[in-house]
Amino acid sequence: MASEFDTATRLAPGADAGTFTGRFAQDWAIGPAVNGGVVMATAAAALTRVLGEGPTPHADPLAFSAHFLSAGADGDLRVDTEVLRRGRTFSTAEAVVTQDGPDGGRVERMRALATYGDLDVASPVHRSVEPVSMPSPEECVDAAQARTGGPMQAPPLMHRLDLRLDPSTAGWAMGKPSGRGQMRAWIRFADGRDADPLSLLFFLDAMPPVSFDLGIGGWAPTLEFSGHVRGRPAPGWLQMATHSSILTGGLMEEDALIWDSRGALVAQSRQLCSVRIPQGWNPPA
Amino acid sequence: MASEFDTATRLAPGADAGTFTGRFAQDWAIGPAVNGGVVMATAAAALTRVLGEGPTPHADPLAFSAHFLSAGADGDLRVDTEVLRRGRTFSTAEAVVTQDGPDGGRVERMRALATYGDLDVASPVHRSVEPVSMPSPEECVDAAQARTGGPMQAPPLMHRLDLRLDPSTAGWAMGKPSGRGQMRAWIRFADGRDADPLSLLFFLDAMPPVSFDLGIGGWAPTLEFSGHVRGRPAPGWLQMATHSSILTGGLMEEDALIWDSRGALVAQSRQLCSVRIPQGWNPPA
Repeated sequence: MASEFDTATRLAPGADAGTFTGRFAQDWAIGPAVNGGVVMATAAAALTRVLGEGPTPHADPLAFSAHFLSAGADGDLRVDTEVLRRGRTFSTAEAVVTQDGPDGGRVERMRALATYGDLDVASPVHRSVEPVSMPSPEECVDAAQARTGGPMQAPPLMHRLDLRLDPSTAGWAMGKPSGRGQMRAWIRFADGRDADPLSLLFFLDAMPPVSFDLGIGGWAPTLEFSGHVRGRPAPGWLQMATHSSILTGGLMEEDALIWDSRGALVAQSRQLCSVRIPQGWNPPA
Repeated sequence: MASEFDTATRLAPGADAGTFTGRFAQDWAIGPAVNGGVVMATAAAALTRVLGEGPTPHADPLAFSAHFLSAGADGDLRVDTEVLRRGRTFSTAEAVVTQDGPDGGRVERMRALATYGDLDVASPVHRSVEPVSMPSPEECVDAAQARTGGPMQAPPLMHRLDLRLDPSTAGWAMGKPSGRGQMRAWIRFADGRDADPLSLLFFLDAMPPVSFDLGIGGWAPTLEFSGHVRGRPAPGWLQMATHSSILTGGLMEEDALIWDSRGALVAQSRQLCSVRIPQGWNPPA
């Protein structure tokens, strides 16, 4: 049986070459909006199809840059791809995700540029970042339960995930944000599917917004996301750390790092989010 | 008289709406390739024209994501733009930079997605990063002179810049890289033009590659760049810090931060570069 994530990102060939059709499901939503990570992974799946064939197949996203235009909704979707360059070591392409609009026209949800390669080609690790020290998953806070008392009820997306928050960065879920703007967690799919390069793009955007730890409870829509997949993940738990340092003009950057179960750094990202700062808000001391 | 940077990024209306023409000059090259920051700033200038008009003008790049396809060369260029969304607070567009190819066709140099806004709209700074502590510009190492003994002669680009390296991170220029993968510097245009949001995109890519500080002397072509402009810079020197933590499979991320002369954080970026690691290379101790 296909995993939930494979079902969510499943594509069929569209009417034209390089075009694919699929469907966004409410199962992966936060409020009415489909999670941006699912939108990105769906686009990335289309690019894997297009760039993963030919004499120099490049099936793995190495750098993926997305700008979000409108919220994805439950329903049919289309991905249009354009190959910009096929190289020996890297290939670059664009993906445009659209859905039917209310007036019959197409509405663009997200556009992405991505450079693909092959992560199985010799990838010696010359320098890296060690995983942060954290209690075991069993000693961490199960996010699906913790969030009951937090800033919002667990959205459908949270049921797709097994997310265990480091207790030292989970205070926000109990109404006591640390004010440091950081979170650490173990994360994996709830149905046991292991991570791969495509799903790393999803995981990079799967954590609750780090602004929760600043005492800013509302959602933080992503304007721009840029993720780098640095290695093929080993099976098992992923370890993830997010943080933000700069909050100005209602915009916040959020950086994420993901390590696999062997402690190898496998992905990193930065996104720029829009946050609505409550009147009189000050960072918690 | 127009500044060198304004001359380099000057555009004329092209044949179609949303299309512009310009010229890349050898003055801004490193070897045969036009500096990627100039390519980005030229594309950003086109988007400022397109998004900076209308009832809700958004003339400032807030998030700029570029994938590089081939090296820009001395000669005519064209920028084709497409507006993806005009919003109340943000607008998003795409820019494609091409030049004439050897066979008469057009060759794409770079494609970018960008979200623009207005940095003059109330931009309270709620959280930020303090500038790193550094000796004054007069006490720093003038890069144009220091590089004579370094891994390569100063390319034409360096004459457009006044770049003063913090002595504690300038060892690489004297053949003694620190191995930490970091650089700090004061930077400004050599002709005295002050920085603005457009030129911050250029500065974010103007430092020598941080791989020099790892003892890897070759050039480090950018595959992907993502930059965020977080504030309008005050006149005067910019202060800049770059670092890299992860080098795997011949790919290195390089993070950059820029502060203005008042110490305000005004821009940050991350790029993924390709580096050629010499046989038997190990990070300097």
